[in-house]
Amino acid sequence: MTNLIIGAAGMIGGKIAKSLSNETLVLADAVPAEPLPGSTVLTLDLTAPDAATRLLETRPATIYHLAAIVSGEAEADFDKGYAVNLDSIRTLLEAIRHIPNYHPRLVYASSAAVMGRPFPDVIPDDFHTVPLTSYGTQKAIAELLINDYSRRGFIDGVSLRLPTICIRPGLPNRAASSFFSNILREPLAGKTANLPVPETTRHWFASPRAAVGFFRHAAQIDTAPLGADRAVTVPGLSATVADQLAALERAAGPDALTLITRNPDPMVEKIVGGWALAYQATRALALGFVADRSFDDIIAAHLAETA
Amino acid sequence: MTNLIIGAAGMIGGKIAKSLSNETLVLADAVPAEPLPGSTVLTLDLTAPDAATRLLETRPATIYHLAAIVSGEAEADFDKGYAVNLDSIRTLLEAIRHIPNYHPRLVYASSAAVMGRPFPDVIPDDFHTVPLTSYGTQKAIAELLINDYSRRGFIDGVSLRLPTICIRPGLPNRAASSFFSNILREPLAGKTANLPVPETTRHWFASPRAAVGFFRHAAQIDTAPLGADRAVTVPGLSATVADQLAALERAAGPDALTLITRNPDPMVEKIVGGWALAYQATRALALGFVADRSFDDIIAAHLAETA
Repeated sequence: MTNLIIGAAGMIGGKIAKSLSNETLVLADAVPAEPLPGSTVLTLDLTAPDAATRLLETRPATIYHLAAIVSGEAEADFDKGYAVNLDSIRTLLEAIRHIPNYHPRLVYASSAAVMGRPFPDVIPDDFHTVPLTSYGTQKAIAELLINDYSRRGFIDGVSLRLPTICIRPGLPNRAASSFFSNILREPLAGKTANLPVPETTRHWFASPRAAVGFFRHAAQIDTAPLGADRAVTVPGLSATVADQLAALERAAGPDALTLITRNPDPMVEKIVGGWALAYQATRALALGFVADRSFDDIIAAHLAETA
Repeated sequence: MTNLIIGAAGMIGGKIAKSLSNETLVLADAVPAEPLPGSTVLTLDLTAPDAATRLLETRPATIYHLAAIVSGEAEADFDKGYAVNLDSIRTLLEAIRHIPNYHPRLVYASSAAVMGRPFPDVIPDDFHTVPLTSYGTQKAIAELLINDYSRRGFIDGVSLRLPTICIRPGLPNRAASSFFSNILREPLAGKTANLPVPETTRHWFASPRAAVGFFRHAAQIDTAPLGADRAVTVPGLSATVADQLAALERAAGPDALTLITRNPDPMVEKIVGGWALAYQATRALALGFVADRSFDDIIAAHLAETA
């Protein structure tokens, strides 16, 4: 039984691969994924005409699909966003449909971006999907296709609407959400980080460890209770920046807080102010998806992984 | 200023055309539409490679799009449903996007089939879109594309989620909803019709006249109040079969009722039992869309049109 990971060179894709290292793996991405013992690394352009054939050659029983053009790029390059985030998934679904007696489990990385403002404080599972970006549109369309192909019996799909991942590894970047990770990762490593928003800012989080858990769990659940709606808003941790900083202080002492500068950035504040505060995730909790319990846990997991 | 009607050979498309007979019209369909003075009739396969080029040759300022593979056929022929109901609309949107300085108003015939059971008694505008058919999936995807292309400024789109049209002209057919029209149209013409469900059965209706009004109104409204969500659930008339029959008796006398046989059809009853009872249509009402007031009005309009 082969597992195919599309987007295996990414942070979460790579961690899913490591968590499955005892199994047969095909690790696909546009750049070479880190090989694991016994794994096959596939380097390909998802929009190439032979991409689906190459991806499905081993008839993987489980497909983890995490490859996407991110939000900013999909907005800047309309054609590329639709080609990668919509056409390549549809081509893959069509290729699966035309293989006799093949009905793989497909776990697809969707996004909370399928929903758009205005939001209630806690967003229910059945909140309507009115995306405000081309990226969100493409993810919402992929969810609809996965629902229909599952209903028709061509695949057995689950789409996961993921929280903001925190603590992200790597260097601070220009993404508006970057500071949520920076203000923990950098002080934990003895470095400075800037907080551009008030401490009262609330957001919705999952650790990389929890995210890997969501994908692994989605690959194993009985999908019958999902009915026609295969899109699952997974549970997360709703927390304020103050909650993050209190956990940082408990983990690294009061000195860690002194590494944080507080230069407000009205642009970042405006973008983040439009984001959701929390989701109910009622269905996912009933299906056994497990969120991080606290930022203390998220920091402890980060320290254990980077030690 | 040219109006393009795609699906002009259909019942509603033809009536829209007649209502616009003082304007420049392009009447497109897979079969020849009834020509009107000064109109251009385009007969084409919407999935043909040159279809979009031919449709857009006159740079129509308003496009009414009513062409679709219906629900049953889209379920029976998966490829044809996606080709006509999804690919052809995407190809049209892409062709429009690539024409410089061209941003037509697009009024698109969507469907309540974008939503799926379970339903509340009165369905709100922001009810989630979990279709239970491939047809509903294709309509929901088209709505998302029209939202995104409108947000990006490529088109100025409005998608209309239409009620069941009643009284449909023509002969009784095998569609599950057929009886709603049959039990009025046939007795009004002195013929018999069968009622396969209980009189308590409630459903959501618009007359052909109201439907034409929705399209004409959608072509003219200021779309700014729609924001990112260009999909409008139009107002309808929520009525029971008993309401229909009472209106029939008022219009044609008690003898008309004796023309109705009552042979229950459990299959039809089951299908219709899964349909929605009523929609709030709050946004559409605020935007000035007008529903039929009663089945008395619907019957009167039918009699005037068929006289």
